[in-house]
Amino acid sequence: MDVLDWLTAALGDEAIAAGVLTTDPVLLDAVRTDRSGWIADGAPLALVNATRVEHVQATLRAANEFRLPVVPRGAGTGLAGGANGTDGAIVLSVAGMDRIVEISAEDQLAVIEPGVVNSDLNDALEPYGLFFAPDPASRAISTIGGNIATNAGGLLCAKYGVTREAVLALDVVLADGRLIRTGHRTVKGVTGFDLTALFVGSEGTLGVIVGATVRLLPIPAGEPRTLGAIFPDVRTAAAAAARVSAARLRPAVMELIDGPALERISAYLGEQTIADAFGTTGGGSFLLVQFDGPSAGADATAAGALIAENGGTVSVAADTAEGERLLAIRRAFHPALAAGGEVLIEDVAVPRSRMPEMFAAIESISQRYGIPIPTVAHAGDGNLHPNFVYEGEEAPAAVWEAAGDLFRTAVELGGTLTGEHGVGVLKRRWLADELGPDSYELQVKLKSVFDPLGILNPGKVFG
Amino acid sequence: MDVLDWLTAALGDEAIAAGVLTTDPVLLDAVRTDRSGWIADGAPLALVNATRVEHVQATLRAANEFRLPVVPRGAGTGLAGGANGTDGAIVLSVAGMDRIVEISAEDQLAVIEPGVVNSDLNDALEPYGLFFAPDPASRAISTIGGNIATNAGGLLCAKYGVTREAVLALDVVLADGRLIRTGHRTVKGVTGFDLTALFVGSEGTLGVIVGATVRLLPIPAGEPRTLGAIFPDVRTAAAAAARVSAARLRPAVMELIDGPALERISAYLGEQTIADAFGTTGGGSFLLVQFDGPSAGADATAAGALIAENGGTVSVAADTAEGERLLAIRRAFHPALAAGGEVLIEDVAVPRSRMPEMFAAIESISQRYGIPIPTVAHAGDGNLHPNFVYEGEEAPAAVWEAAGDLFRTAVELGGTLTGEHGVGVLKRRWLADELGPDSYELQVKLKSVFDPLGILNPGKVFG
Repeated sequence: MDVLDWLTAALGDEAIAAGVLTTDPVLLDAVRTDRSGWIADGAPLALVNATRVEHVQATLRAANEFRLPVVPRGAGTGLAGGANGTDGAIVLSVAGMDRIVEISAEDQLAVIEPGVVNSDLNDALEPYGLFFAPDPASRAISTIGGNIATNAGGLLCAKYGVTREAVLALDVVLADGRLIRTGHRTVKGVTGFDLTALFVGSEGTLGVIVGATVRLLPIPAGEPRTLGAIFPDVRTAAAAAARVSAARLRPAVMELIDGPALERISAYLGEQTIADAFGTTGGGSFLLVQFDGPSAGADATAAGALIAENGGTVSVAADTAEGERLLAIRRAFHPALAAGGEVLIEDVAVPRSRMPEMFAAIESISQRYGIPIPTVAHAGDGNLHPNFVYEGEEAPAAVWEAAGDLFRTAVELGGTLTGEHGVGVLKRRWLADELGPDSYELQVKLKSVFDPLGILNPGKVFG
Repeated sequence: MDVLDWLTAALGDEAIAAGVLTTDPVLLDAVRTDRSGWIADGAPLALVNATRVEHVQATLRAANEFRLPVVPRGAGTGLAGGANGTDGAIVLSVAGMDRIVEISAEDQLAVIEPGVVNSDLNDALEPYGLFFAPDPASRAISTIGGNIATNAGGLLCAKYGVTREAVLALDVVLADGRLIRTGHRTVKGVTGFDLTALFVGSEGTLGVIVGATVRLLPIPAGEPRTLGAIFPDVRTAAAAAARVSAARLRPAVMELIDGPALERISAYLGEQTIADAFGTTGGGSFLLVQFDGPSAGADATAAGALIAENGGTVSVAADTAEGERLLAIRRAFHPALAAGGEVLIEDVAVPRSRMPEMFAAIESISQRYGIPIPTVAHAGDGNLHPNFVYEGEEAPAAVWEAAGDLFRTAVELGGTLTGEHGVGVLKRRWLADELGPDSYELQVKLKSVFDPLGILNPGKVFG
């Protein structure tokens, strides 16, 4: 009996009739890539579109039996090649496990399946006055299982925490097909090691997440207040952003756009957009700050004064409509870049106080390699997304050399080569450098506890 | 050469002259216990009072060489027997590693040694307008290393998060004496598995924490507003507290005291204290709520109305002095109980909405065993501390039987047998029941990755 026969029998007639298992070459081809643009060599063996926990268990049992690699996958919006179907692997998609099982207003938690799309959960929560805070820029297309697999956070993390802090409990199918539950329906709980936190950010290398109990927060009262500022250059803007944090103001959103990015956005939106907002065109950098909660107005006024003192030309939105016009500048970042070619989105993080140095390094690396690196930063938590725009199917070697220089600089500044996208395939060659040999060795041993046969997403994260 | 000679040579003349190593029977006897009252059998072999990372490394190398158990210890304020020096072990105290190495106002973080006492850090942070949120009731005597080892949080966790969320990076000496660093000086970072989170709450079984980079928060603006309420019974009070959370109000502190506890506090402080605050004596339960931040006043008013609607007799403090009088009732909890005998402090957590059921179970278990169980709860996060008051050196068997019933009930309600104190020795017999066999087995294997010889705090957490 070959693996497909075995898997067909294990999944059962109903699942097979529903198309849970497919070997359609077009579908297999589609899961070789993600939003990084990287395409895995060869072709996966099969694609399982799981809609139930039992399908995940059957798949892992088959993989065990035949010692085949399994690549867990959600919406495929990853940016590090972590969910790309590799040659001969079974790709195990949980995108179809997309039920919101429970919303508890009393306990401010939701029980969800991993395929729930971020914005779908927040839409469902709005009537309860609650929200799920780790809400990445890809919210409309990315799944919460993907957030959890990469500990992806997005714009609100500085104030509301990363995904790890929002995950109370997980249902996980282990490499051998057993189902375990970690954590509790409580904020506190310290029985044994924190397996929940260990699975968060593990990129499908320790188990397959089939359910999560996530913590919700009350939607802050009142209207948010937004301000924008332009600066002569990005280092001044980064220093001003760091001053806002150091002044103990706590913006919900603080996004910083550098010169090369702002140029492309201006071209994309039309110069007049910036002129309308700030009474002047151009500018070498744009900072967007949004406060929420009861002191949003006072905080915006204080931050506006501080930013003006630190070299910014400030526009405080009078109302939501004006705020939306400022937000539109930030939102145009990705479309403006995509208009120029293929985009590789990088993801370093540094301590907030080192952002000016990191931006200086980006400028100098850009000059050295002759490659523009338009960059946006979640400035509240020092998470920078330097972007490389290129032509052709895959990022050229020079782009990766420049990225390598960026990664090393971020680590030297006390930061990391990935703030929230994960390591996947595309950053694994730098992992050991950041972790050091002792931590790296521990991590490899940890993986082997959970996955002794090495069938869970092999080749991802670790070399 | 015996282990003491080996250790003497490894520590070096300076350390030996400074008294880092001792075998004084009085000192060895003192480290056999903690604040749980449990005393380990036998006698430890030696006590190392480390003041430098090198002392910790030398101790672990000696323990490796001679395959001896090492019991990491801080201030000895634990409540689960996790740091008690067992027979033949080397007790490794890091209480003397108590330097605040760095406070960065810009990056809102502090770098500390593990022996820093919680309130000392917060005293040092106050001039910067920052605070370290995981601030347990034992703040004046417990160390941050102890918080981290048990993921202990205290009163502010519902609003400001548990210790794990406040730890950005750790320096850890592994079982074989190697020093590793986990994490970053950034909020975000997803390179490999989250070893930082794995060490938090690991109770000295995976490594010895010798340094931490902790995240700080801005001290909320304005004066906090405090209110108290008395209720006819604890179930009504618990339901009212759950209503406050469900109304999306976010108290910084919400403490609930049940009838048996309030009786003892009234006797301890004098009946007049309650009468002065509420215009009536007695009452079957006391709820203390404190709001901070810019909307503290409005939140207190809203919560007061809600609590009154739900059966409470409410007193909203007009100023800080009145607030202090209400806080004094809560602060009298431990002294009032200690006045009646030895106290075993338990530590279950349940989803907030299940608190009334948990309190009902406590009442019924108390009646069944004929043992009073005065209880205080951090009601914002459903963390209850049922207390057993007894006579004599150790808690009688009936107390542990009653505690076992409490633990099972908490787990059945979706909670845990320990919210923040840890498992230690005293709760290890229930650990496997809560985790289930598969998770338990994984945890034991994880431990063996970090501690292949089984020298790190053996007998703690795992059976």
